[in-house]
Amino acid sequence: MATRIGMDTIELQTPVFAESYAAVGGALENGGLLQGKLARVFDDATLGLDSWEKAEAQLQQAAADAALLRAGRKGADVDLHIAGDLLGQCSASMFAGRGLGIPFAGVYGACSTMALSMAMGALMLESGAVGTVLAGTSSHFCAAEKQFRQPLEYGGQRPPTAQWTATAAGAVLLSAAGDAPKITQLQFGRVVDLGVKDAHNMGAAMAPAAANTIGAFFRDTRTMPADYDLILTGDLGLVGSDLLRQLLLSDWGVALGNNHKDCGLLLYHEEQANEINAGASGCGCSAAVLCGEILPLIAAGHLTRVLFVATGALLSSVSPLQGESIPAVAHAVLIEGQK
Amino acid sequence: MATRIGMDTIELQTPVFAESYAAVGGALENGGLLQGKLARVFDDATLGLDSWEKAEAQLQQAAADAALLRAGRKGADVDLHIAGDLLGQCSASMFAGRGLGIPFAGVYGACSTMALSMAMGALMLESGAVGTVLAGTSSHFCAAEKQFRQPLEYGGQRPPTAQWTATAAGAVLLSAAGDAPKITQLQFGRVVDLGVKDAHNMGAAMAPAAANTIGAFFRDTRTMPADYDLILTGDLGLVGSDLLRQLLLSDWGVALGNNHKDCGLLLYHEEQANEINAGASGCGCSAAVLCGEILPLIAAGHLTRVLFVATGALLSSVSPLQGESIPAVAHAVLIEGQK
Repeated sequence: MATRIGMDTIELQTPVFAESYAAVGGALENGGLLQGKLARVFDDATLGLDSWEKAEAQLQQAAADAALLRAGRKGADVDLHIAGDLLGQCSASMFAGRGLGIPFAGVYGACSTMALSMAMGALMLESGAVGTVLAGTSSHFCAAEKQFRQPLEYGGQRPPTAQWTATAAGAVLLSAAGDAPKITQLQFGRVVDLGVKDAHNMGAAMAPAAANTIGAFFRDTRTMPADYDLILTGDLGLVGSDLLRQLLLSDWGVALGNNHKDCGLLLYHEEQANEINAGASGCGCSAAVLCGEILPLIAAGHLTRVLFVATGALLSSVSPLQGESIPAVAHAVLIEGQK
Repeated sequence: MATRIGMDTIELQTPVFAESYAAVGGALENGGLLQGKLARVFDDATLGLDSWEKAEAQLQQAAADAALLRAGRKGADVDLHIAGDLLGQCSASMFAGRGLGIPFAGVYGACSTMALSMAMGALMLESGAVGTVLAGTSSHFCAAEKQFRQPLEYGGQRPPTAQWTATAAGAVLLSAAGDAPKITQLQFGRVVDLGVKDAHNMGAAMAPAAANTIGAFFRDTRTMPADYDLILTGDLGLVGSDLLRQLLLSDWGVALGNNHKDCGLLLYHEEQANEINAGASGCGCSAAVLCGEILPLIAAGHLTRVLFVATGALLSSVSPLQGESIPAVAHAVLIEGQK
């Protein structure tokens, strides 16, 4: 069972455990923070397949397979598979769902999907009807550029505010019984749109949603930044992270400290910065950072309270061309270790 | 709380109630079964907006607004909004979510979305954390044709197996307390793909998923077709409905009787058949039939046990062009009235 705290936050009376987790990625993603921490590395971004979309589906399935393998489980042991991604009709997840054969619920939250699938999975576990939920997502640089901006062959120049969609995937096996890491609180965000129209500036579009969710979370739980070992947003990048600090200060009176990190600024190392401009993005970015780096640190006792706030820009491949501004959403999951 | 029955089916120990519901649609959708039953009719398919995508978002928001109005509630009274649609990046739902301002969880199940959003909403209500959930979806003929097949201006000929995407939306306000109609059991389907590759034959692609979910539901609940007033699939159309009967008989030994109806064959009347070929489809079809016709019949005591099985073809706008077959899924929700 779960209960409401304040206006928007939900507390799980029975914690939900991250039984296993895995991240996979491409060569670039193996060059930064996650070097040596990916369950599989695909040096060839095609994964040997004949389309970027098929490659992304395979990437997502590889993360799910790795998480299941680490738990010593098969698909038949899992009650529900929740997944989504950025591609039209969430096709990477649909084809990964076909490969896994588990009862399947598709979700859509753009780059907030890792938190969304974990939050929905956790609440469904709280209902008592399911005992294990596989939550996952993916993104692929080439598939995303082709869909949202230009095909790579066009060679379009990327402005400094642009973020680099990670070729990566993550999966978490949630379970009703277990040890740390555990999910204890969560929040579904509201859609926020302050009018940003630039599809090359996702950070600016998403920062207001992140500020709204984090501010509401602190208000509802009567906590402040110092109560957390890590406040992990994803993926605001350089531009969005700065805006988040400004908005939290001006709208909520909250000053973020050094315990705030953004997945978009963690994934790649500094020497990769020329290529990636304002940071990493894509559903796979926060998924891979969470599953490849943060959950292992919580399990090892190096982090105890992590507020994971994944952000999604809810534009479509056509909405910016039709003059629409970019709505955004941020979902929060509090993940705790052993005290 | 909820519990598992058999392998795949979930029973709600506390029923979830459909507090209010509403369907909206275009002129064509007001010409058949739902004549006079739509909360709003939009004779102009553009809804006065400058793109089909914006029109669909507006359509979806109109259904949500109508359901809230009938319940005498405002968005601020609702704990969670769950919605999805067929457009790339579920854009109709994302923009409707922006308009409604309720904590928002996006889902993707193609034409199974009405059942998917109700099933996920019902389980999240069972957790005790939320008291009201707004579940909804939409589709728009012009937006769907442009995306999945050809822009209307191309004037492509539609083969006899093609279905007509409904310009319609439906919304249900689910509540933890109330009267009939109520959701008592549900099932998340598995992704099934028997290799159909024809994007003009959705019925054939989806029938195996419908057969799998219905067969598993009967197996898990130890029931048979005669135990239901209505087994309502959506949207298999002429071709898929026939295949469903064949597959249920051959694979599960279940003979569907006259209490099986398909939303794709209910929405439009016979005189519209020349235009619509094998029947109606689109997320909005089963949503509008359920919200405009079936839920009111349950509330009025004319139907007592309705097994609603919405089916989704999980192709993307590019996957058939890349040689992929069409995976499909079917989610089931048992809706009961007063006995």
